[in-house]
Amino acid sequence: MPKRTAAIVVIGNEILNGRSEDQNARFLIGELYELGVSLRRIVVIPDVLDEIAASVRECSEKFDYVFTSGGVGPTHDDVTIEGVALALGRNVVRSSKLEAMIKGYFGPDADEARLRMADVPEDAELAGGSNLKWPVLAASNVFILPGVPELFRSKFEAIKERFRAEPFFSRAVFTREDEFDLAPALRRVAAEHAEVEIGSYPNFQSSEYKVKITLESKEQAAVDRALAALLTSLDSSMLARTE
Amino acid sequence: MPKRTAAIVVIGNEILNGRSEDQNARFLIGELYELGVSLRRIVVIPDVLDEIAASVRECSEKFDYVFTSGGVGPTHDDVTIEGVALALGRNVVRSSKLEAMIKGYFGPDADEARLRMADVPEDAELAGGSNLKWPVLAASNVFILPGVPELFRSKFEAIKERFRAEPFFSRAVFTREDEFDLAPALRRVAAEHAEVEIGSYPNFQSSEYKVKITLESKEQAAVDRALAALLTSLDSSMLARTE
Repeated sequence: MPKRTAAIVVIGNEILNGRSEDQNARFLIGELYELGVSLRRIVVIPDVLDEIAASVRECSEKFDYVFTSGGVGPTHDDVTIEGVALALGRNVVRSSKLEAMIKGYFGPDADEARLRMADVPEDAELAGGSNLKWPVLAASNVFILPGVPELFRSKFEAIKERFRAEPFFSRAVFTREDEFDLAPALRRVAAEHAEVEIGSYPNFQSSEYKVKITLESKEQAAVDRALAALLTSLDSSMLARTE
Repeated sequence: MPKRTAAIVVIGNEILNGRSEDQNARFLIGELYELGVSLRRIVVIPDVLDEIAASVRECSEKFDYVFTSGGVGPTHDDVTIEGVALALGRNVVRSSKLEAMIKGYFGPDADEARLRMADVPEDAELAGGSNLKWPVLAASNVFILPGVPELFRSKFEAIKERFRAEPFFSRAVFTREDEFDLAPALRRVAAEHAEVEIGSYPNFQSSEYKVKITLESKEQAAVDRALAALLTSLDSSMLARTE
């Protein structure tokens, strides 16, 4: 079962210096998981053209989808459109459709600062359909979303169904054994069930369990097999619960 | 004034699939700003050796400091030590000092799962001094921190003063003008004061202001000059306040 993969590129000095807290990557993590899309990378970078181009280029080549957040307004620090175009080797061109929308809203004398919002990477798709007042720009596999969290969400929601894939299946085992004692069995089960992603997370706060072991795959039967193998390997008297 | 730069590499499938929410990058953003260190990149990647090595290598070459979070336990999905060693072209070796600490704690018959915790990139520094029960591993400019948030914090706090640099100075202007109307003046002031980082953030929720403009630099006089130039360019009747 092929995995659809994704990366998020968050663009904004204000996240890196702490003036704003990222809400968009956090939102998208949950959405992508629910859609069955495997998120493989999140990058947060400043409003610098070359860094945007380099990150978007690398992610666009490595993953099925790239979502950018931020840097799409009219001011000097909004360079995401140019960065995406540079990443994909495309020119920035003025979209006549967007230009008409801007003139429809601001009037025929809309100034250059407003008309700049019609500049897009060449051959960009205007996505999101009639649900949106302003479309999402998609260039190749890169989806350009705004940094303002309310807008980020409404725009992603308008396009999300195109990304839907087979769902993930997951199980979890909670045990009172500690990670050192579990490590050899976990290593063996993980090696024998390479198609299942197995994670081990120590917990120093709950008295109920010491380690949470997670098992995840796109194939439910594979998860069930790995879980059975794992439960055979663990000390059953130390098992807190499975989920 | 030279800027000290940093990157954070967060390692963990559990962040990318949403089972855990990142707390460590969020914590470090505030700490680094307060220390006067310019955070230039955050990357979140899975527990995959080659991806860890590639991200750490790139960040180690580009930035003054790299902080990794996660992947340092005894289980199969803990491959950060190997990844950092690979990034730096070093071998993984067993530290006799850490081995003695482990045997002191678990007894002379401590098993291989426990002794693995003594494996470090060759020539790693054991940092953090006597404040810590277990040191922070530092290899070249890479500081290896655990994923468990309480431990991440206490370990960073034990080493943070070595990173202290000149503080940042910042000011903010809140205006009722909208970003389209501000854009030309902002572009001009930003170009004439390139040593000051100027950001523009629209606000669609408050009725007090429409745009927050931030000015930041390591030189207070430069911030003051850019602020004066900016205030001259803006429509004073639309100014909400400065901060």
